[in-house]
Amino acid sequence: MKQALNVAITGAAGHIGYALAFRVASGAMLGADQPINLRLLEITPALPGLQGIVMELEDCAFPLLNQITVTDDARTAFRDCHAALLIGARPRGPGMERKDLLLANAQIFSAQGKALAEAADRNVKVLVVGNPANTNALIARANARGLNARNFTAMTRLDHNRALAQLSRKTATHISAIRRMIIWGNHSATQYPDVSHCFVDGRPASKLVERKWLEESFIPDVQQRGAAVIKARGSSSAASAASAVIDHVRDWVRGTPEGDWVSMAIPADGSYGIPEGVVYSYPVVCRGGDYEIVQGLAIDEFSRSRMQATLKELHEEREGVQELLG
Amino acid sequence: MKQALNVAITGAAGHIGYALAFRVASGAMLGADQPINLRLLEITPALPGLQGIVMELEDCAFPLLNQITVTDDARTAFRDCHAALLIGARPRGPGMERKDLLLANAQIFSAQGKALAEAADRNVKVLVVGNPANTNALIARANARGLNARNFTAMTRLDHNRALAQLSRKTATHISAIRRMIIWGNHSATQYPDVSHCFVDGRPASKLVERKWLEESFIPDVQQRGAAVIKARGSSSAASAASAVIDHVRDWVRGTPEGDWVSMAIPADGSYGIPEGVVYSYPVVCRGGDYEIVQGLAIDEFSRSRMQATLKELHEEREGVQELLG
Repeated sequence: MKQALNVAITGAAGHIGYALAFRVASGAMLGADQPINLRLLEITPALPGLQGIVMELEDCAFPLLNQITVTDDARTAFRDCHAALLIGARPRGPGMERKDLLLANAQIFSAQGKALAEAADRNVKVLVVGNPANTNALIARANARGLNARNFTAMTRLDHNRALAQLSRKTATHISAIRRMIIWGNHSATQYPDVSHCFVDGRPASKLVERKWLEESFIPDVQQRGAAVIKARGSSSAASAASAVIDHVRDWVRGTPEGDWVSMAIPADGSYGIPEGVVYSYPVVCRGGDYEIVQGLAIDEFSRSRMQATLKELHEEREGVQELLG
Repeated sequence: MKQALNVAITGAAGHIGYALAFRVASGAMLGADQPINLRLLEITPALPGLQGIVMELEDCAFPLLNQITVTDDARTAFRDCHAALLIGARPRGPGMERKDLLLANAQIFSAQGKALAEAADRNVKVLVVGNPANTNALIARANARGLNARNFTAMTRLDHNRALAQLSRKTATHISAIRRMIIWGNHSATQYPDVSHCFVDGRPASKLVERKWLEESFIPDVQQRGAAVIKARGSSSAASAASAVIDHVRDWVRGTPEGDWVSMAIPADGSYGIPEGVVYSYPVVCRGGDYEIVQGLAIDEFSRSRMQATLKELHEEREGVQELLG
């Protein structure tokens, strides 16, 4: 039996946390032979409800679930943790400006970055889901000295999966036959879902769909999908977000499929002209528990302008939280 | 690629349905190489919300999820279906007597039995979760002429898993080292969780725990666990119930682990003195897509009286719905 890995989930009593914890404990994320210790972090008032979720986790009799810790202390949650899934974030309250929201979250994620630096495994893999995810990841990273800085990522996999679903529907082709989707930039309405390098059943997507559909339907529909789900369901995406967390970490740890890549928001390194200092979504290939940005893709003028627009937003977000970046 | 199997889920927009559909679509139930068509049934007013869940299912880009059907018509949902997960049931409304509730559900499940008989695959595997689950399964079976009557089952796997969790905690032994738990009888507060044949890390459970603990803590705690979860979480067990559905069907289809068994409520056949005509939870071993009751277990006087008490309740439930049993 392998040694158990410690997986921390923040905001564990929320809707995404509830959808996520059980799938992690079932082995869907780290594999059917990998025992897991769950570290569930919540704000103090949510602890009693979280206790009920722990009861349910126990009641699943998961063979891989070794130990469950419930806490409102970030250092306890992150102690020796190998994966930190940072779901919890401050939602926008009444009368709250965008800038206030940004700062409120920046405070949470700078504190969590410090707690990770104090307590976590030196190679902890961090995935930020709580919005604004890219900038929250940047802040956590800036405050987590001593940890592997490459490992601070934000989630655009839900956007990636949504883009696959839209193209699948449009081309009447099963998702499993679509390769090389890309989400560039910020997990926000400025993200750029890009099919320029996509193959649908072996054929270039650009030959199968019209420019007009891409610009007027596909891109805005992927960008606005979260709002459309809220409208239909009456609450925000939870199970699909949790599923994207599973996908993101599973592929990061266990590798991407041969001949394909995935989208991850990662610290920019200058690739594709995106300067260091932001967390930006790129196409990546994962091997041996690490990722590499896919290099050498041709970027046309349209793509370039979209990639710059979402970069501009990330720069603006960074401006708003400069004081917490040290 | 295997041919897709059709999996129907009723009450698909409810909390258990929401926790279940994504795990089924991910391959957790029928295996990582088995494509699935999901048939989601809801009452008409719940269809718009269910549409939002379909959006989220699409947004997961599950490689195994082939097709999703949403309907308020049971025949459409059950058309050629191979597995029918009957989650939806009428909850107790204000001023409703137990007998009214029993009858309201009996009507739902007699209609669903008829729809299954009309539309489903002749060897459809049926799992009833909606309460009173055993009697609902009995009613569905009685109304489903032409189908394999053995295949009408009700879920006591959540109770089985809860019993494992309680014994695991008491003996400080991981769940994966506990074998041969039994839930006898009805999925209700009269169920009898029985450790008489249980081994904990190779040792008989009866040697490790006291009679007093079994009678005064273990049995009532397992029987009342659902209420305890509601009290802690503020809502009823959803993810753990969904996980037990996964376990029940997975083991039924793909087999129980060597040297162990599971609990399933199935049509009684006289084994252990339980007469035909009720759906009763037994220890079973599954092989080749079928189950066999574990035979020849010694039943002491205490167990016998508990097994009779839960049988008595099943007889009373049957009395209350006699008119729908044909």
